[in-house]
Amino acid sequence: MDGLRALEGTIDHIRKAAPNTVILGDAKRGDIGSTAPAYAKAMFQVWGFDAVTVNAWGGYDGLEPFLEDPARGVFIWCRGSNPGSADLQDLTVNTLDGPIPLYQHLARSADGWNRNGNIGLVMGATNPDQLADVRSLCPHMPLLIPGVGAQGGDLADAVLAGMDRNGRRALINSSRGIIYARPEPGGSQDFAAAARQAAARLRDQINRILTDAGKGWL
Amino acid sequence: MDGLRALEGTIDHIRKAAPNTVILGDAKRGDIGSTAPAYAKAMFQVWGFDAVTVNAWGGYDGLEPFLEDPARGVFIWCRGSNPGSADLQDLTVNTLDGPIPLYQHLARSADGWNRNGNIGLVMGATNPDQLADVRSLCPHMPLLIPGVGAQGGDLADAVLAGMDRNGRRALINSSRGIIYARPEPGGSQDFAAAARQAAARLRDQINRILTDAGKGWL
Repeated sequence: MDGLRALEGTIDHIRKAAPNTVILGDAKRGDIGSTAPAYAKAMFQVWGFDAVTVNAWGGYDGLEPFLEDPARGVFIWCRGSNPGSADLQDLTVNTLDGPIPLYQHLARSADGWNRNGNIGLVMGATNPDQLADVRSLCPHMPLLIPGVGAQGGDLADAVLAGMDRNGRRALINSSRGIIYARPEPGGSQDFAAAARQAAARLRDQINRILTDAGKGWL
Repeated sequence: MDGLRALEGTIDHIRKAAPNTVILGDAKRGDIGSTAPAYAKAMFQVWGFDAVTVNAWGGYDGLEPFLEDPARGVFIWCRGSNPGSADLQDLTVNTLDGPIPLYQHLARSADGWNRNGNIGLVMGATNPDQLADVRSLCPHMPLLIPGVGAQGGDLADAVLAGMDRNGRRALINSSRGIIYARPEPGGSQDFAAAARQAAARLRDQINRILTDAGKGWL
């Protein structure tokens, strides 16, 4: 349970050091309707995450308990950044609107489930075309975009394909690129400073891409 | 973390009281290839489960770390017992062999991934026709069958549709029917005895169904 204690300490630290930060728990939970409320309670009440990732394989009844509180965000794993995500998510399914890839069907379903306006989608950066498809299906939904950095997705492609028409709502996620950031060889061995630098560098890169696209903050 | 301590205590107790019991952790874990090894380690090394349930939404690379040890069983959530399982799992997908339901495609994929012979499938009891379809696609695979009891699936249908040709490899699961078993009104208030009785009654019913089908133990 050391890992859980580390998580607890991390959340406590963020709440103290930066109280307005949104904390997202990427636990990809997914279970049936009778068990899901316990997972939702654990993520939102026990851990206190502001948003979570979920796995929709079990369908709507397993998602419903996560969606109840409009103040908590729920990112449905739609099309992942890993190679295996193609195995099921890219299959062609027959729908009333004709054959479409499964991840697109899920994006449309999510749009229908979004009664509280708190659903987002996880869309990997490794396939910008798919990201663009989902952005056009769900023009207003926040997209959580893993896969830049360690997984090799191109940052500019991800930002430009994932942002909404105002240049917002694309949450670019880097995990290993930041938590495993290494200090410069020969320099200080300050891993915390290296992580901070990696995060700041990524933020600056994103802002530069948005500015170049005429969607900057200024 | 009280729940985790209760789980730890439960596992310890089973190991002491019934050392040969197979303990299955129904955690439905599923994540990408870089994170899945940590979940597999948690389930098999830290908790010491003999078998687990997993969620295959992320495809093969997320399953691989669970499959490495041929001595540990891995039940892939194929077609659940909850209503929402229809949302994605029953979609018709186009495959090289023509259009088939997604859960059947996953069952076939699982058969192909089963190099270590340690894969089983979770198949809900609430749809015996689907159970029979998967049993014919995967004649030798263990099937973990939730949905009898609290969820209303018929036990005889589940046993007969789920068993292999020898009357084996159908693991009928009752969770709430046993852990929430209530003592007879007016009788003793011994909840442990009530759970024991519920488990014994289910076992006897299963054995009677197998015997009636000519597949009994005697």
